[in-house]
Amino acid sequence: MYDSIIIGGGPAGISAAINLKLNGKSFIWLCGKNSVKKVQSAELIKNYPGLPDVTGKQLAWALNNHADLMGIEKTEEIATAIYDLGGTFATTAGDNTYESKTVILCLGVTPTKLIEGEDRLLGRGVSYCATCDGFLYKGKTIAVMLTDKSFEPEAEFLCSLAEKTYLFPFYKNSDFAPSNAEIIVKPIEKIEGEKRVERIICGNERIDVDGIFILRSSVAPGVLLKGLKTDGGHITADRQQRTNINGVFAAGDCTGRPYQYAKSVGEGNVAAHAAVEYLAGK
Amino acid sequence: MYDSIIIGGGPAGISAAINLKLNGKSFIWLCGKNSVKKVQSAELIKNYPGLPDVTGKQLAWALNNHADLMGIEKTEEIATAIYDLGGTFATTAGDNTYESKTVILCLGVTPTKLIEGEDRLLGRGVSYCATCDGFLYKGKTIAVMLTDKSFEPEAEFLCSLAEKTYLFPFYKNSDFAPSNAEIIVKPIEKIEGEKRVERIICGNERIDVDGIFILRSSVAPGVLLKGLKTDGGHITADRQQRTNINGVFAAGDCTGRPYQYAKSVGEGNVAAHAAVEYLAGK
Repeated sequence: MYDSIIIGGGPAGISAAINLKLNGKSFIWLCGKNSVKKVQSAELIKNYPGLPDVTGKQLAWALNNHADLMGIEKTEEIATAIYDLGGTFATTAGDNTYESKTVILCLGVTPTKLIEGEDRLLGRGVSYCATCDGFLYKGKTIAVMLTDKSFEPEAEFLCSLAEKTYLFPFYKNSDFAPSNAEIIVKPIEKIEGEKRVERIICGNERIDVDGIFILRSSVAPGVLLKGLKTDGGHITADRQQRTNINGVFAAGDCTGRPYQYAKSVGEGNVAAHAAVEYLAGK
Repeated sequence: MYDSIIIGGGPAGISAAINLKLNGKSFIWLCGKNSVKKVQSAELIKNYPGLPDVTGKQLAWALNNHADLMGIEKTEEIATAIYDLGGTFATTAGDNTYESKTVILCLGVTPTKLIEGEDRLLGRGVSYCATCDGFLYKGKTIAVMLTDKSFEPEAEFLCSLAEKTYLFPFYKNSDFAPSNAEIIVKPIEKIEGEKRVERIICGNERIDVDGIFILRSSVAPGVLLKGLKTDGGHITADRQQRTNINGVFAAGDCTGRPYQYAKSVGEGNVAAHAAVEYLAGK
């Protein structure tokens, strides 16, 4: 049982991790793949106080290096579901499940809009995790939507299992082309099926599939943790970064605008302190 | 008429200034004396993300240097009063008055408790400003309370004007001893007087004075700006750093715990963005 679990490895997550570590708390840190990608892609950052005129790559390095110097461990896992067990939480990521007393959500800008049917059919043909559910689709027909190049190995793994894969790469300059996959560059509008996924709709096309894998760098907050209060896709948090669920805190872009690095590290710090205070009061 | 006035030169003020400047807003920045003193006095700071294991002096330098590199001007003035003129604000500091459309309060940790009688007799014998009101006490008897070594020149100026000065240095290792001053190391418990200051009470002593100068690095928020909502000495702010007064924003330690540099720069950033948004909507 960990004191906390931090979901997300961007500036808010880094700040939260630094402060939990300094407070001697045990925690697991699920960063996902290339969690500072958004920072890295910034050309020039002029308003991170103390580091004037840094490139995104420099700031990303400085933030990661800070956590590394403190010996903080991270994993590349992506949280796919969090269950509120009443006082404790179970978070699934890949094949692993982690139990913790608190949760700090640093999800970044998350998809504000789910695909129609995604939420309803989650766990019944809709999956966020190739390694968890891939084997279920051996020899079957699937759709795989990926939002980032870093998901290509997972997508390739799925293609190797399935008989036929419809591939939806939602990022620029993709030259990804596994042998048994059909590439489609249209957005998926709808996932249909009565009890399970039966087909997807994109444009005029109806494509029969047995399942669909949606590989995003983060899961929408309200889907990740049922009952979490959100507003316009952002997690509702108070000035102490507390959400509506006791023991769950949120920090950074996922709590709303402005999307700013300084805001993110500030909120990550406050969320960690609020979690420490919560743990002391338990 | 400035777009904004920033009161306070610590981490929150620096972050606000950087962001107002980047947004092309005109502003005046009242930093007070040695506004980063609290940062400088920190031995080692381990949780300012991106600058691992910096001394307080190094962090203070890095923050100040950032603003300096951007050519942002600051003054050492201390705001003594802010008047809400209904849509605009007038801030007095020393002999100057500045008009602005918005106010960003970055006051740091402010005195949570005023001396009994301080608020009631402010402007009637209680003064926060030696250069503004000193001449009124030429040849008279005054008390001067100073919370920091940096106020010694002002206190000395007051001693040179007054016939007799009771000096209350509220800081460690003071060897300040002007010739016509009597040093008292007890706290001032009460300021008395019906229409004007008549005497101060400390311990068993009742000392008759014509006026009292209270030289603090910042004025208590509710005294600085009448009508500003506070709670336990902290300014009440929402997630956008807006206070209860339209056009007035607050950031950093003055909005409450945790007292953390990362929180301060985050809130300074958000306050500046909220002010920019407010100005756009005017």
